[in-house]
Formats: sequence, structure tokens, C-alpha cells
Amino acid sequence: MKLLEERIAKDGEVYPGNILKIDSFLNHQIDVELLDAMGDELFLLFGNCGVNKILTIEASGIAIASIAALKFKVPVVFAKKSKTANISSDYYCAEVISYTHGNTNNVIVSKSYLNRDDNVLIIDDFLATGEALRGLIEIVGQSGAKLVGAGIAVEKAFQSGGRELREKGYRIESLAMIKSLEDGKISFC
Amino acid sequence: MKLLEERIAKDGEVYPGNILKIDSFLNHQIDVELLDAMGDELFLLFGNCGVNKILTIEASGIAIASIAALKFKVPVVFAKKSKTANISSDYYCAEVISYTHGNTNNVIVSKSYLNRDDNVLIIDDFLATGEALRGLIEIVGQSGAKLVGAGIAVEKAFQSGGRELREKGYRIESLAMIKSLEDGKISFC
Repeated sequence: MKLLEERIAKDGEVYPGNILKIDSFLNHQIDVELLDAMGDELFLLFGNCGVNKILTIEASGIAIASIAALKFKVPVVFAKKSKTANISSDYYCAEVISYTHGNTNNVIVSKSYLNRDDNVLIIDDFLATGEALRGLIEIVGQSGAKLVGAGIAVEKAFQSGGRELREKGYRIESLAMIKSLEDGKISFC
Repeated sequence: MKLLEERIAKDGEVYPGNILKIDSFLNHQIDVELLDAMGDELFLLFGNCGVNKILTIEASGIAIASIAALKFKVPVVFAKKSKTANISSDYYCAEVISYTHGNTNNVIVSKSYLNRDDNVLIIDDFLATGEALRGLIEIVGQSGAKLVGAGIAVEKAFQSGGRELREKGYRIESLAMIKSLEDGKISFC
């Protein structure tokens, strides 16, 4: 998606360790008009798939998932991160390692809001190693729901998460694909 | 706002300790079409105030703030919760007690995204004791920005946060005002 790539090229900041910060329009300050255009794009990609529910993960997935959900006219469910070791049986639960924050979270979704009758699209802001996405896919599996695919804002294509999950047969569509952040320079696929 | 009150009456769950759970349409699963109507209502209330930025707090404030921001055509900044004691000088920081979670968080906003030229509307999902809102107001104060007011989805009017802040002169508009949750019965002001 050209508009998003142009914005990343203009406002993205690269930090050592291949970290891309897009805090000025997606992860801390949010440009909702850009997200509106991204929602249109996600609807073009997945609008004919019978999606009845969008699943995302707190915190920064919520904005893009909610604005996209307006296009699909379906509810959003956001997975919560929980440090608690004992999760009640009312929740689906998957373990997710965060390389950014150097910790492991349980990611939980109430059984009330996801079940075998659902046709789920996952939406998230970033895909790199794929840990968060794998956790959400596991939760959809636990619920018995059908997974339509995943719509991602920004994929670091030089990390293996997207490739590995596509090889397993999941449909993953990323609106911007980063080829490299080497030498602090952002290049796209 | 009648639509929201009706929804709370229909789907809200009351738990011991005056806890109101509205997880099925606001705090875990999100009814984005209801939020769209709430955004229209907030724009009716604050649309003529020259708002150029909306401030909220992760996680469940993000959806309502983002959808409302589409009406105002302005960016959202969401304050982040941080357990870290040492906050870099690049951030505004306020301490917020969470009675729900029984802990204290630092709430932080990057200085890059809020400054004296801004005209800020705070949007959040809940107002009870007012701790989160006080923290956000403190951050707006630190930035030197002008505070237009606060738009809240659900206020527990039987707790003191809203009253105390209004007495200090802040404009606070709540779309639904809960008068009481006694005996598990939800009544509105």
C-alpha cells in the first residue's frame, strides 16, 4: 500500500537491532485518517470472505482493528495480555514471547466472544518473528472458529514469521513489507 | 445517550463491589457501530471547540478515541502504562492508581506528541474515582497544551471522580451516567 509505505519512509525511525519505530502515526500517536485508508485496503482484500469477527491484541492493534471493523460492520475482540500464571477456564490462552519487551505474556480471550460459529480475520500492526500472530492463531484454533487469514499493517519481511506462517498455509496480507533496515535505511519489497 | 444506556441495561453485568462489566461491547469485545454512534455524539458535544488532538489511555480507551477521532479528523495520542520507575526525560509522566487492578502505574506520553500549541480533548471509556482522568489531565498540564475537556463513555456517578473534577472547573461530558449498581440493578441518572 503506497500511502503507508510513503509514510513509513517519511516518518519511520530506525534504531539499532533492526527496530523500526512508527510511533508518530501508528504506535503512540495515531493518524486515524491513514488507518481509515488502511481499513479500506483490508476490506478490499478480505471483504468477500464472510468475516463476522475481527481479532486483535492490545494495545496498538486495537486502533487499526477497530477502524477496519467499521468497514466490515463486525465486532472486534481484542486479546488481553496477562502476567497471571493461573488463567480461569473461561478463557482461551496462548503463551507469547515478546522480543521487544524481553518477556513472556499469556494472551487471553474470553470464551464468550469466540466460538466455532465464527469466521475470524486477525488484524495486527506488526509482523516480525510472528510470535503474537502465532498466539492469536492458536486461540482461534482453541475456539474452533474458522480463520480467514491475517491482515497486517507492517511486516518485517527479513524476519521469518510471515514466511513460516504462509508456508503452513495461512493467508497473510501485509499492507507494507519491509525488505531491510540495514544501515538505518528503510527499503521495501 | 439513550442507545448506550439501553445497551448497558441489556448487556452490562454487575459484580460485587459495584463493578460493572461491559466486556461484551466495550472492554473486550467491541461493538464498533455503537462506538461510531458514540463518536458522533462526542463530536456534537465538542466539535466546535477547536480540538486538534485527542488523548486517551491504553488499552480500552483506544477504540472509542480512534473512532471518535475520525469525526474530528485529528490524531489520537494514547498514554502508555509503564511499570518502570525511571522514565526518560523525553516523556511526560503521571502516577495513576488502579483500584480495579490494585496497583500503581506510571502513565507516560512522549513529549514529541503533545505541546503548548495543542488543544486537547481527553476521551476514555470509564470514569469512577477519576484516577486515570486526573493522570491524563496532569500530563496535559505538563505539556502546556490547552485542555478542552473530557468525553467519557460511562461514568459511575455514585463515585466521586466526576464531581470533584467538575468542581475544579473541568468540562466533563459522560455519555452514560450510572446512578447506582445496588443489589445488582443498574440505574441511570
